[in-house]
Amino acid sequence: MSTTPLSPTPRSTIGRNAVRARTERSDLYDVLDAGLVCHLGFVVDGAPVVLPTAYGRDGGTLYLHGSSGARYLSGAEFPACVTVTHLDGVVHARAVMHFSMNYRSAVVHGTARRVTDADERWEALRVVVEHLTPGAWEHARQPNRRELAATAVFALDLTEASVKIRTGPPSDDTEDVDADAAWAGVVPVRTVFGEPEPSPDLPTSWSVPAHLRADHDREPIT
Amino acid sequence: MSTTPLSPTPRSTIGRNAVRARTERSDLYDVLDAGLVCHLGFVVDGAPVVLPTAYGRDGGTLYLHGSSGARYLSGAEFPACVTVTHLDGVVHARAVMHFSMNYRSAVVHGTARRVTDADERWEALRVVVEHLTPGAWEHARQPNRRELAATAVFALDLTEASVKIRTGPPSDDTEDVDADAAWAGVVPVRTVFGEPEPSPDLPTSWSVPAHLRADHDREPIT
Repeated sequence: MSTTPLSPTPRSTIGRNAVRARTERSDLYDVLDAGLVCHLGFVVDGAPVVLPTAYGRDGGTLYLHGSSGARYLSGAEFPACVTVTHLDGVVHARAVMHFSMNYRSAVVHGTARRVTDADERWEALRVVVEHLTPGAWEHARQPNRRELAATAVFALDLTEASVKIRTGPPSDDTEDVDADAAWAGVVPVRTVFGEPEPSPDLPTSWSVPAHLRADHDREPIT
Repeated sequence: MSTTPLSPTPRSTIGRNAVRARTERSDLYDVLDAGLVCHLGFVVDGAPVVLPTAYGRDGGTLYLHGSSGARYLSGAEFPACVTVTHLDGVVHARAVMHFSMNYRSAVVHGTARRVTDADERWEALRVVVEHLTPGAWEHARQPNRRELAATAVFALDLTEASVKIRTGPPSDDTEDVDADAAWAGVVPVRTVFGEPEPSPDLPTSWSVPAHLRADHDREPIT
Protein backbone atom coordinates (compact mmCIF):
# COMPACT_ATOMS: atom_id res chain seq x y z
CA MET A 1 0.00 0.00 0.00
CA SER A 2 1.33 3.41 -0.95
CA THR A 3 2.22 5.71 1.88
CA THR A 4 1.91 8.90 -0.18
CA PRO A 5 -0.36 11.29 1.72
CA LEU A 6 -3.53 12.54 0.11
CA SER A 7 -3.07 15.50 -2.18
CA PRO A 8 -3.56 18.84 -0.46
CA THR A 9 -4.85 20.71 -3.50
CA PRO A 10 -7.39 23.46 -2.77
CA ARG A 11 -10.35 21.35 -3.87
CA SER A 12 -9.23 18.34 -1.83
CA THR A 13 -8.59 20.43 1.29
CA ILE A 14 -11.55 20.35 3.61
CA GLY A 15 -12.72 23.80 4.64
CA ARG A 16 -15.82 23.15 6.72
CA ASN A 17 -15.53 21.08 9.89
CA ALA A 18 -11.83 20.48 9.22
CA VAL A 19 -11.65 18.55 12.49
CA ARG A 20 -13.34 15.71 10.61
CA ALA A 21 -10.71 15.55 7.88
CA ARG A 22 -8.38 12.58 7.60
CA THR A 23 -5.20 12.87 5.63
CA GLU A 24 -3.77 9.34 5.66
CA ARG A 25 -3.91 7.36 2.46
CA SER A 26 -4.98 4.30 4.47
CA ASP A 27 -8.09 6.18 5.60
CA LEU A 28 -9.01 6.75 1.95
CA TYR A 29 -8.52 3.09 1.10
CA ASP A 30 -10.51 1.97 4.14
CA VAL A 31 -13.51 4.10 3.14
CA LEU A 32 -13.35 3.01 -0.50
CA ASP A 33 -12.86 -0.67 0.29
CA ALA A 34 -15.82 -0.75 2.69
CA GLY A 35 -18.34 0.47 0.10
CA LEU A 36 -20.31 -1.20 -2.66
CA VAL A 37 -21.70 1.79 -4.55
CA CYS A 38 -19.98 5.03 -5.45
CA HIS A 39 -21.53 8.19 -6.83
CA LEU A 40 -19.79 9.23 -10.02
CA GLY A 41 -20.01 12.89 -11.00
CA PHE A 42 -19.27 14.23 -14.46
CA VAL A 43 -20.21 17.32 -16.46
CA VAL A 44 -22.53 17.41 -19.46
CA ASP A 45 -23.11 20.76 -21.20
CA GLY A 46 -21.86 22.61 -18.15
CA ALA A 47 -24.22 20.84 -15.75
CA PRO A 48 -23.33 18.15 -13.23
CA VAL A 49 -24.61 14.59 -13.49
CA VAL A 50 -24.33 12.19 -10.55
CA LEU A 51 -24.93 8.47 -11.05
CA PRO A 52 -24.55 5.52 -8.70
CA THR A 53 -22.29 2.79 -9.97
CA ALA A 54 -20.05 -0.09 -8.94
CA TYR A 55 -16.30 0.31 -8.63
CA GLY A 56 -13.13 -1.42 -7.60
CA ARG A 57 -9.66 -0.44 -6.44
CA ASP A 58 -6.26 -1.74 -7.52
CA GLY A 59 -3.60 -0.06 -5.42
CA GLY A 60 -3.75 3.65 -6.14
CA THR A 61 -6.21 3.34 -9.02
CA LEU A 62 -9.99 3.30 -8.91
CA TYR A 63 -11.76 1.45 -11.71
CA LEU A 64 -15.27 1.97 -13.04
CA HIS A 65 -17.07 0.19 -15.81
CA GLY A 66 -20.15 0.82 -17.85
CA SER A 67 -21.78 0.13 -21.16
CA SER A 68 -19.61 1.18 -24.08
CA GLY A 69 -22.79 2.79 -25.46
CA ALA A 70 -23.34 5.02 -22.43
CA ARG A 71 -23.44 8.65 -23.39
CA TYR A 72 -21.10 9.94 -20.71
CA LEU A 73 -18.43 7.33 -21.43
CA SER A 74 -17.96 8.21 -25.08
CA GLY A 75 -14.71 10.18 -24.72
CA ALA A 76 -11.15 9.11 -24.00
CA GLU A 77 -11.23 10.95 -20.71
CA PHE A 78 -13.42 13.26 -18.69
CA PRO A 79 -13.19 15.26 -15.45
CA ALA A 80 -14.71 13.10 -12.75
CA CYS A 81 -15.49 13.08 -9.06
CA VAL A 82 -16.15 9.81 -7.29
CA THR A 83 -17.68 9.88 -3.82
CA VAL A 84 -18.24 6.97 -1.45
CA THR A 85 -20.30 7.58 1.70
CA HIS A 86 -21.07 5.33 4.63
CA LEU A 87 -23.83 6.49 6.93
CA ASP A 88 -23.10 5.35 10.49
CA GLY A 89 -25.67 7.20 12.55
CA VAL A 90 -28.17 10.01 12.96
CA VAL A 91 -26.88 12.51 15.52
CA HIS A 92 -29.63 14.04 17.64
CA ALA A 93 -28.59 17.29 19.29
CA ARG A 94 -30.39 19.54 21.77
CA ALA A 95 -30.64 22.15 18.98
CA VAL A 96 -31.94 21.30 15.53
CA MET A 97 -29.09 23.18 13.86
CA HIS A 98 -26.62 20.84 15.57
CA PHE A 99 -28.30 17.74 14.21
CA SER A 100 -25.80 15.83 12.16
CA MET A 101 -24.85 12.41 10.88
CA ASN A 102 -22.02 10.10 11.75
CA TYR A 103 -20.43 9.06 8.49
CA ARG A 104 -17.29 8.17 6.62
CA SER A 105 -16.91 9.71 3.17
CA ALA A 106 -14.23 9.84 0.51
CA VAL A 107 -14.24 12.32 -2.36
CA VAL A 108 -11.85 11.62 -5.23
CA HIS A 109 -11.15 14.29 -7.84
CA GLY A 110 -9.42 13.67 -11.12
CA THR A 111 -9.63 12.78 -14.76
CA ALA A 112 -11.20 9.45 -15.62
CA ARG A 113 -9.24 7.95 -18.50
CA ARG A 114 -10.64 5.25 -20.73
CA VAL A 115 -8.66 2.05 -20.37
CA THR A 116 -7.80 0.53 -23.75
CA ASP A 117 -5.00 -1.93 -22.91
CA ALA A 118 -6.53 -5.41 -22.98
CA ASP A 119 -4.65 -6.67 -19.93
CA GLU A 120 -5.51 -3.62 -17.83
CA ARG A 121 -9.15 -3.83 -18.93
CA TRP A 122 -9.31 -7.48 -17.87
CA GLU A 123 -7.67 -6.79 -14.53
CA ALA A 124 -9.95 -3.78 -13.94
CA LEU A 125 -13.09 -5.85 -14.54
CA ARG A 126 -11.75 -8.51 -12.19
CA VAL A 127 -11.14 -5.87 -9.54
CA VAL A 128 -14.66 -4.41 -9.89
CA VAL A 129 -16.31 -7.84 -9.63
CA GLU A 130 -14.09 -8.92 -6.75
CA HIS A 131 -14.88 -5.67 -4.94
CA LEU A 132 -18.57 -6.56 -5.11
CA THR A 133 -18.01 -10.09 -3.76
CA PRO A 134 -14.54 -11.60 -3.28
CA GLY A 135 -14.38 -14.97 -5.00
CA ALA A 136 -17.03 -14.18 -7.59
CA TRP A 137 -14.56 -13.76 -10.46
CA GLU A 138 -13.29 -17.34 -10.16
CA HIS A 139 -16.71 -18.79 -9.45
CA ALA A 140 -18.71 -17.32 -12.33
CA ARG A 141 -18.08 -17.32 -16.06
CA GLN A 142 -15.49 -14.74 -17.02
CA PRO A 143 -16.08 -12.22 -19.82
CA ASN A 144 -16.15 -13.32 -23.44
CA ARG A 145 -15.12 -11.25 -26.44
CA ARG A 146 -18.63 -9.93 -27.07
CA GLU A 147 -19.09 -8.84 -23.46
CA LEU A 148 -15.69 -7.16 -23.42
CA ALA A 149 -16.57 -5.20 -26.56
CA ALA A 150 -19.77 -3.98 -24.94
CA THR A 151 -17.98 -2.73 -21.83
CA ALA A 152 -16.15 0.54 -21.27
CA VAL A 153 -13.60 0.68 -18.48
CA PHE A 154 -12.34 3.87 -16.87
CA ALA A 155 -9.51 4.48 -14.42
CA LEU A 156 -9.18 7.29 -11.92
CA ASP A 157 -5.92 7.87 -10.05
CA LEU A 158 -6.32 8.14 -6.30
CA THR A 159 -3.91 11.05 -6.07
CA GLU A 160 -6.29 13.87 -5.19
CA ALA A 161 -8.85 13.03 -2.57
CA SER A 162 -10.34 14.05 0.73
CA VAL A 163 -11.68 11.89 3.51
CA LYS A 164 -14.08 13.08 6.16
CA ILE A 165 -15.22 11.08 9.16
CA ARG A 166 -17.61 12.06 11.93
CA THR A 167 -18.05 9.89 15.00
CA GLY A 168 -19.43 10.32 18.47
CA PRO A 169 -22.18 12.26 20.22
CA PRO A 170 -23.64 15.63 19.22
CA SER A 171 -21.67 18.85 19.69
CA ASP A 172 -24.17 21.06 21.47
CA ASP A 173 -23.73 24.58 22.75
CA THR A 174 -23.06 24.73 26.50
CA GLU A 175 -26.27 26.64 27.17
CA ASP A 176 -28.31 23.93 25.44
CA VAL A 177 -26.61 21.19 27.45
CA ASP A 178 -27.30 23.14 30.64
CA ALA A 179 -30.93 23.76 29.66
CA ASP A 180 -31.37 19.98 29.38
CA ALA A 181 -34.57 20.42 27.37
CA ALA A 182 -34.08 17.77 24.69
CA TRP A 183 -32.74 14.25 24.28
CA ALA A 184 -29.27 14.01 22.81
CA GLY A 185 -27.43 11.07 21.37
CA VAL A 186 -26.92 8.92 18.32
CA VAL A 187 -29.18 6.47 16.53
CA PRO A 188 -26.73 4.05 14.88
CA VAL A 189 -27.30 3.12 11.25
CA ARG A 190 -25.86 -0.09 9.87
CA THR A 191 -26.06 -1.79 6.51
CA VAL A 192 -26.34 -5.56 6.71
CA PHE A 193 -26.49 -8.49 4.34
CA GLY A 194 -29.51 -10.79 4.40
CA GLU A 195 -29.61 -14.50 3.67
CA PRO A 196 -28.72 -15.30 0.04
CA GLU A 197 -31.83 -15.86 -2.10
CA PRO A 198 -31.25 -18.40 -4.89
CA SER A 199 -32.53 -17.47 -8.34
CA PRO A 200 -35.89 -19.19 -9.08
CA ASP A 201 -34.28 -20.99 -12.03
CA LEU A 202 -31.33 -22.30 -9.98
CA PRO A 203 -31.47 -26.09 -9.50
CA THR A 204 -32.28 -26.89 -5.87
CA SER A 205 -29.21 -29.12 -5.69
CA TRP A 206 -27.09 -25.96 -5.31
CA SER A 207 -25.93 -24.91 -1.87
CA VAL A 208 -24.64 -21.41 -1.22
CA PRO A 209 -20.97 -21.30 -2.29
CA ALA A 210 -18.27 -20.61 0.29
CA HIS A 211 -17.28 -17.20 -1.11
CA LEU A 212 -20.85 -16.06 -0.71
CA ARG A 213 -21.11 -17.28 2.84
CA ALA A 214 -17.93 -15.33 3.56
CA ASP A 215 -19.55 -12.30 1.97
CA HIS A 216 -22.63 -12.78 4.09
CA ASP A 217 -20.51 -13.07 7.24
CA ARG A 218 -18.26 -10.12 6.61
CA GLU A 219 -18.57 -6.90 8.51
CA PRO A 220 -21.67 -4.86 7.76
CA ILE A 221 -20.94 -2.09 5.33
CA THR A 222 -22.05 1.49 4.65
CA MET B 1 -49.18 15.18 -4.19
CA SER B 2 -48.65 16.43 -7.72
CA THR B 3 -49.55 14.05 -10.50
CA THR B 4 -47.34 15.75 -13.10
CA PRO B 5 -45.19 13.06 -14.69
CA LEU B 6 -41.43 13.31 -14.52
CA SER B 7 -39.91 15.53 -17.17
CA PRO B 8 -38.85 13.63 -20.29
CA THR B 9 -35.94 15.88 -21.20
CA PRO B 10 -33.00 14.16 -22.91
CA ARG B 11 -30.88 14.13 -19.75
CA SER B 12 -33.69 12.78 -17.62
CA THR B 13 -34.57 10.06 -20.12
CA ILE B 14 -32.93 6.79 -19.24
CA GLY B 15 -31.00 5.28 -22.13
CA ARG B 16 -29.33 2.22 -20.62
CA ASN B 17 -31.51 -0.54 -19.17
CA ALA B 18 -34.63 1.48 -19.88
CA VAL B 19 -36.71 -1.38 -18.52
CA ARG B 20 -35.67 -0.21 -15.07
CA ALA B 21 -36.98 3.31 -15.57
CA ARG B 22 -39.98 4.55 -13.63
CA THR B 23 -41.89 7.56 -14.82
CA GLU B 24 -44.44 8.20 -12.08
CA ARG B 25 -43.90 11.18 -9.84
CA SER B 26 -44.89 9.04 -6.85
CA ASP B 27 -41.92 6.76 -7.59
CA LEU B 28 -39.61 9.76 -7.38
CA TYR B 29 -41.10 10.86 -4.08
CA ASP B 30 -40.91 7.34 -2.66
CA VAL B 31 -37.20 7.06 -3.42
CA LEU B 32 -36.44 10.53 -2.08
CA ASP B 33 -38.51 10.11 1.07
CA ALA B 34 -36.89 6.78 1.96
CA GLY B 35 -33.35 8.20 2.01
CA LEU B 36 -31.31 10.08 4.59
CA VAL B 37 -28.32 11.18 2.54
CA CYS B 38 -28.24 12.54 -1.00
CA HIS B 39 -25.22 13.11 -3.20
CA LEU B 40 -25.16 16.70 -4.44
CA GLY B 41 -23.25 17.39 -7.64
CA PHE B 42 -22.12 20.82 -8.78
CA VAL B 43 -19.43 22.20 -11.06
CA VAL B 44 -16.33 24.11 -9.97
CA ASP B 45 -13.94 25.38 -12.67
CA GLY B 46 -15.41 22.95 -15.17
CA ALA B 47 -14.93 19.91 -12.95
CA PRO B 48 -17.62 18.01 -11.06
CA VAL B 49 -17.79 17.88 -7.27
CA VAL B 50 -20.00 15.35 -5.49
CA LEU B 51 -20.69 15.73 -1.77
CA PRO B 52 -22.98 13.80 0.57
CA THR B 53 -25.48 15.93 2.42
CA ALA B 54 -28.84 15.94 4.16
CA TYR B 55 -31.99 17.03 2.40
CA GLY B 56 -35.72 17.34 2.73
CA ARG B 57 -38.73 17.52 0.44
CA ASP B 58 -41.71 19.86 0.54
CA GLY B 59 -44.12 18.88 -2.21
CA GLY B 60 -42.35 19.33 -5.51
CA THR B 61 -39.32 21.10 -4.02
CA LEU B 62 -36.14 19.57 -2.63
CA TYR B 63 -34.32 21.56 0.04
CA LEU B 64 -30.65 21.45 0.97
CA HIS B 65 -28.77 23.40 3.58
CA GLY B 66 -25.17 24.11 4.35
CA SER B 67 -22.85 26.58 5.94
CA SER B 68 -23.24 30.06 4.50
CA GLY B 69 -19.43 30.07 4.32
CA ALA B 70 -19.21 26.97 2.12
CA ARG B 71 -17.39 27.70 -1.10
CA TYR B 72 -19.86 26.06 -3.43
CA LEU B 73 -22.87 27.81 -1.91
CA SER B 74 -21.65 31.33 -2.48
CA GLY B 75 -23.79 32.14 -5.52
CA ALA B 76 -27.49 32.89 -5.90
CA GLU B 77 -27.93 29.74 -7.96
CA PHE B 78 -25.93 26.96 -9.52
CA PRO B 79 -26.55 23.98 -11.82
CA ALA B 80 -27.06 20.99 -9.56
CA CYS B 81 -27.73 17.29 -9.67
CA VAL B 82 -29.05 15.50 -6.60
CA THR B 83 -28.97 11.72 -6.51
CA VAL B 84 -30.44 9.42 -3.87
CA THR B 85 -29.60 5.73 -4.04
CA HIS B 86 -30.84 2.78 -2.00
CA LEU B 87 -28.87 -0.43 -2.33
CA ASP B 88 -31.21 -3.40 -1.93
CA GLY B 89 -29.06 -6.35 -2.94
CA VAL B 90 -26.02 -7.76 -4.69
CA VAL B 91 -27.11 -9.74 -7.75
CA HIS B 92 -24.95 -12.80 -8.41
CA ALA B 93 -25.22 -14.05 -11.99
CA ARG B 94 -23.71 -17.11 -13.70
CA ALA B 95 -21.52 -14.72 -15.70
CA VAL B 96 -19.48 -11.98 -14.06
CA MET B 97 -20.60 -9.42 -16.64
CA HIS B 98 -24.20 -9.98 -15.56
CA PHE B 99 -23.45 -9.25 -11.93
CA SER B 100 -25.58 -6.32 -10.84
CA MET B 101 -27.21 -4.67 -7.88
CA ASN B 102 -30.79 -4.32 -6.87
CA TYR B 103 -31.37 -0.69 -6.11
CA ARG B 104 -33.70 2.28 -6.21
CA SER B 105 -32.22 5.55 -7.40
CA ALA B 106 -33.48 9.02 -8.19
CA VAL B 107 -31.50 11.58 -10.16
CA VAL B 108 -32.77 15.17 -10.05
CA HIS B 109 -31.41 17.74 -12.50
CA GLY B 110 -31.93 21.45 -12.18
CA THR B 111 -30.78 24.78 -10.87
CA ALA B 112 -30.38 25.10 -7.13
CA ARG B 113 -31.57 28.55 -6.12
CA ARG B 114 -30.58 30.20 -2.88
CA VAL B 115 -33.60 30.72 -0.67
CA THR B 116 -33.69 34.21 0.80
CA ASP B 117 -37.29 34.59 1.98
CA ALA B 118 -37.28 34.21 5.76
CA ASP B 119 -40.47 32.15 5.91
CA GLU B 120 -39.35 29.78 3.16
CA ARG B 121 -35.92 29.40 4.80
CA TRP B 122 -37.55 28.53 8.13
CA GLU B 123 -39.88 26.02 6.52
CA ALA B 124 -37.02 24.51 4.49
CA LEU B 125 -34.92 23.95 7.59
CA ARG B 126 -37.92 22.37 9.32
CA VAL B 127 -38.39 20.05 6.35
CA VAL B 128 -34.71 19.00 6.31
CA VAL B 129 -34.68 18.24 10.05
CA GLU B 130 -38.03 16.46 9.94
CA HIS B 131 -36.78 14.37 7.01
CA LEU B 132 -33.92 13.17 9.20
CA THR B 133 -36.21 12.27 12.10
CA PRO B 134 -39.91 13.19 12.18
CA GLY B 135 -40.69 14.96 15.43
CA ALA B 136 -37.20 16.33 15.95
CA TRP B 137 -38.11 19.91 15.00
CA GLU B 138 -40.64 20.23 17.81
CA HIS B 139 -38.53 18.33 20.33
CA ALA B 140 -35.22 20.18 20.00
CA ARG B 141 -34.43 23.88 20.20
CA GLN B 142 -35.32 25.66 16.98
CA PRO B 143 -32.85 27.93 15.17
CA ASN B 144 -31.89 31.29 16.62
CA ARG B 145 -30.91 34.39 14.67
CA ARG B 146 -27.18 33.60 14.78
CA GLU B 147 -27.69 30.05 13.53
CA LEU B 148 -29.97 31.25 10.76
CA ALA B 149 -27.34 33.74 9.60
CA ALA B 150 -24.74 30.98 9.43
CA THR B 151 -26.93 28.74 7.29
CA ALA B 152 -27.45 28.78 3.54
CA VAL B 153 -30.61 27.16 2.18
CA PHE B 154 -31.05 26.03 -1.41
CA ALA B 155 -34.12 24.81 -3.27
CA LEU B 156 -34.25 22.51 -6.28
CA ASP B 157 -37.49 22.00 -8.20
CA LEU B 158 -38.41 18.36 -8.71
CA THR B 159 -39.45 18.95 -12.30
CA GLU B 160 -36.68 17.14 -14.16
CA ALA B 161 -35.76 13.78 -12.75
CA SER B 162 -35.31 10.14 -13.52
CA VAL B 163 -35.98 7.12 -11.35
CA LYS B 164 -34.44 3.72 -11.87
CA ILE B 165 -35.31 0.58 -9.94
CA ARG B 166 -33.89 -2.90 -10.29
CA THR B 167 -35.43 -5.83 -8.46
CA GLY B 168 -35.36 -9.59 -8.74
CA PRO B 169 -32.93 -12.32 -9.75
CA PRO B 170 -30.04 -12.07 -12.24
CA SER B 171 -30.66 -11.88 -15.97
CA ASP B 172 -28.34 -14.54 -17.32
CA ASP B 173 -27.87 -15.70 -20.89
CA THR B 174 -29.73 -18.93 -21.68
CA GLU B 175 -26.51 -20.82 -22.37
CA ASP B 176 -25.17 -19.87 -18.92
CA VAL B 177 -28.39 -21.00 -17.24
CA ASP B 178 -28.21 -24.29 -19.14
CA ALA B 179 -24.52 -24.77 -18.28
CA ASP B 180 -25.48 -24.54 -14.58
CA ALA B 181 -21.87 -23.90 -13.61
CA ALA B 182 -22.30 -21.14 -11.05
CA TRP B 183 -24.61 -20.12 -8.23
CA ALA B 184 -27.14 -17.44 -9.10
CA GLY B 185 -29.29 -15.30 -6.87
CA VAL B 186 -29.44 -12.21 -4.73
CA VAL B 187 -27.79 -11.32 -1.44
CA PRO B 188 -30.18 -8.77 0.08
CA VAL B 189 -28.74 -5.60 1.56
CA ARG B 190 -30.67 -3.68 4.17
CA THR B 191 -29.93 -0.59 6.20
CA VAL B 192 -31.19 -0.76 9.75
CA PHE B 193 -31.31 1.48 12.81
CA GLY B 194 -29.62 0.37 16.01
CA GLU B 195 -30.67 1.16 19.57
CA PRO B 196 -30.43 4.88 20.37
CA GLU B 197 -27.20 5.71 22.27
CA PRO B 198 -27.66 8.60 24.71
CA SER B 199 -24.96 11.28 24.69
CA PRO B 200 -22.48 10.76 27.58
CA ASP B 201 -23.46 14.16 28.99
CA LEU B 202 -27.21 13.43 28.91
CA PRO B 203 -28.69 13.06 32.41
CA THR B 204 -29.61 9.43 33.05
CA SER B 205 -33.14 10.52 33.96
CA TRP B 206 -33.89 10.83 30.23
CA SER B 207 -35.72 8.04 28.45
CA VAL B 208 -35.74 7.81 24.68
CA PRO B 209 -38.45 10.19 23.36
CA ALA B 210 -41.42 8.79 21.47
CA HIS B 211 -40.50 10.32 18.11
CA LEU B 212 -37.15 8.56 18.30
CA ARG B 213 -38.70 5.23 19.11
CA ALA B 214 -40.92 5.70 16.08
CA ASP B 215 -37.83 6.46 14.04
CA HIS B 216 -36.14 3.34 15.35
CA ASP B 217 -39.17 1.24 14.46
CA ARG B 218 -39.75 2.59 10.99
CA GLU B 219 -38.91 0.65 7.87
CA PRO B 220 -35.23 0.09 7.29
CA ILE B 221 -33.78 2.59 4.90
CA THR B 222 -30.61 2.82 2.87
